[in-house]
Amino acid sequence: MFTPDAIPPLDRDAGDRVRGYLDTLTKPPGSLGRLEQLAIALAEMTGDAFPDVTPPAVLVFAADHGVAHEGVSAFPQHVTAQMVANFVAGGAAINVFARQIGARLEVIDVGVAAELPGEGVVVDKVRAGTANFTRQDAMSRAEARQALDIGVRAANRAIDAGCRCLIVGEMGIANTTASSAMLAVLAGEAVGPLVGAGTGIAESRLAHKTAVIERAIAARQADPDDPLELLAKLGGLEIGAMAGAFLGSAARRRPVLVDGFIATVAALLACRLCPATRDYLIFAHRSCEPGHEVALSALAATPLLDLQMRLGEGSGAALAFPLLQAATRMLAEMATFDAAGVAAGDTR
Amino acid sequence: MFTPDAIPPLDRDAGDRVRGYLDTLTKPPGSLGRLEQLAIALAEMTGDAFPDVTPPAVLVFAADHGVAHEGVSAFPQHVTAQMVANFVAGGAAINVFARQIGARLEVIDVGVAAELPGEGVVVDKVRAGTANFTRQDAMSRAEARQALDIGVRAANRAIDAGCRCLIVGEMGIANTTASSAMLAVLAGEAVGPLVGAGTGIAESRLAHKTAVIERAIAARQADPDDPLELLAKLGGLEIGAMAGAFLGSAARRRPVLVDGFIATVAALLACRLCPATRDYLIFAHRSCEPGHEVALSALAATPLLDLQMRLGEGSGAALAFPLLQAATRMLAEMATFDAAGVAAGDTR
Repeated sequence: MFTPDAIPPLDRDAGDRVRGYLDTLTKPPGSLGRLEQLAIALAEMTGDAFPDVTPPAVLVFAADHGVAHEGVSAFPQHVTAQMVANFVAGGAAINVFARQIGARLEVIDVGVAAELPGEGVVVDKVRAGTANFTRQDAMSRAEARQALDIGVRAANRAIDAGCRCLIVGEMGIANTTASSAMLAVLAGEAVGPLVGAGTGIAESRLAHKTAVIERAIAARQADPDDPLELLAKLGGLEIGAMAGAFLGSAARRRPVLVDGFIATVAALLACRLCPATRDYLIFAHRSCEPGHEVALSALAATPLLDLQMRLGEGSGAALAFPLLQAATRMLAEMATFDAAGVAAGDTR
Repeated sequence: MFTPDAIPPLDRDAGDRVRGYLDTLTKPPGSLGRLEQLAIALAEMTGDAFPDVTPPAVLVFAADHGVAHEGVSAFPQHVTAQMVANFVAGGAAINVFARQIGARLEVIDVGVAAELPGEGVVVDKVRAGTANFTRQDAMSRAEARQALDIGVRAANRAIDAGCRCLIVGEMGIANTTASSAMLAVLAGEAVGPLVGAGTGIAESRLAHKTAVIERAIAARQADPDDPLELLAKLGGLEIGAMAGAFLGSAARRRPVLVDGFIATVAALLACRLCPATRDYLIFAHRSCEPGHEVALSALAATPLLDLQMRLGEGSGAALAFPLLQAATRMLAEMATFDAAGVAAGDTR
């Protein structure tokens, strides 16, 4: 398991060098706003004053949830396996956006409740879906640890293959239910305001979804100060693997883009396991799911995009990637005032 | 000059076809949020249910402003010419972002107050900068019309070269001053709250900039219902050319990305000249310049990005382009529920 010293501190010197260099580039100081902040952050993470984020890797972790049998999702459970097949065939949104940014895409079966055709999927199945956590723990503590390790290994594979930035996504029918349950415990918040339509259940079914989550939290009595226990009791296999991927990416000093609601809950879990993980996270977009705001504020995060999306798969993170690329290209390619013979301004 | 019937109406049928098709794709209905709205809008503009936006064109219009001599900018006037040289050499932010998106970049000298080396610049100079509009009209009505025509021609060149989406930017020291003056008259707003730091003048100089603009507006007495007169009295040559590029792009049914404050004022001018222009505009980002909010709300526009930028050149519009591309690729490449064998959900 990760200990806090497994994750290297940020390179503040590299950040300072970039901060100074940015003001020599042919633009009014600070005028590229968050792009300049991104450039500094990427330098601090990588230790490189001219950081590179290409090629990126997309990791999509898939697993099923026993709680799906409580009727909390707009889609039936077997859609998880069907969507994995769609990922393999290249027809899902994340395939399209991964191709657009030239990413290496890997789909990892951490616990889909079906036999999948092996081709095109990394089968690293802990178990065939979690148990229904309204009745028993979602998984054992050992299985939770296994899920985390799978995520760490996936991050390492991507980095060993030369990827310089990770994008972490998921597929798992009912995983907004598991994420909302985990978040309520982690953030110490009431369930009601966290719960949203997920993939799109009708307004009239929200009260049922909320009641299911409240019942599960009361039954499981997870200790909020024991993140691994929380993952075992109320979590999901793909959520654990995502947390592992964040830990693994941070340990190797690779910037990692956090997608929407489920990814942010996984990121919060990773940060509770090892707070230094936070330093390597870049938050991609603000999801429509109401709990996302709570998860973001628990991490003091302001996402780059706000496009009213709620798809998951890593889709929002893939869409934000060109902004990271622009930040690195700005550093590498823009001329300085001196080199271009442009007079600097008087902004005092 | 453009008449309202020069701009074709949107193809609502193509939009409706896309709206229906989007719900057959393997994602919960509506879950890609603004990307889905973009896809519908692009179909309505182009009349194509599978619209394409690549390759894009970046048009950067450069000109000088007589009002720069009133000390309203953090940079001296000759920086306009120096930055044009930087564009030609490929070292400015817009060069970097244009390369990232594979855009055809053209720099057009509409009125720089210096002789520029011809190579790499389209020289279409109306005059060597505007007059100082605190003392006399910025330009004649004929010159204003000429600036518009230059923008229309530039749009046509890009479209004739095969570009499917336009990105319109500018360079012109003191052009936030001209834009603020135009906006105050166009929107009927007080000058003070519109005025910002532009390229970054000190807080202490804002009051001076505001007073200069108020003095100019009082002296020029431009008729808010005569957009061409307003451009002539208080405008800028590059602002007129940008307005022309918006008109020209709309007339050819090409989507056009509007950059920040100056571009949005130019877009507002174009819409006052010919309201149907509005249908072809996509607003890229929310600038830090306080007047931008007023200009955006006059156009009922909600930009795609909010990255606290204030550079101009078309930089924010170029950064937003990958989102348009993602919207078109989503339509062209995603699998349908039927084709992928994925069960549709129950979102009633």
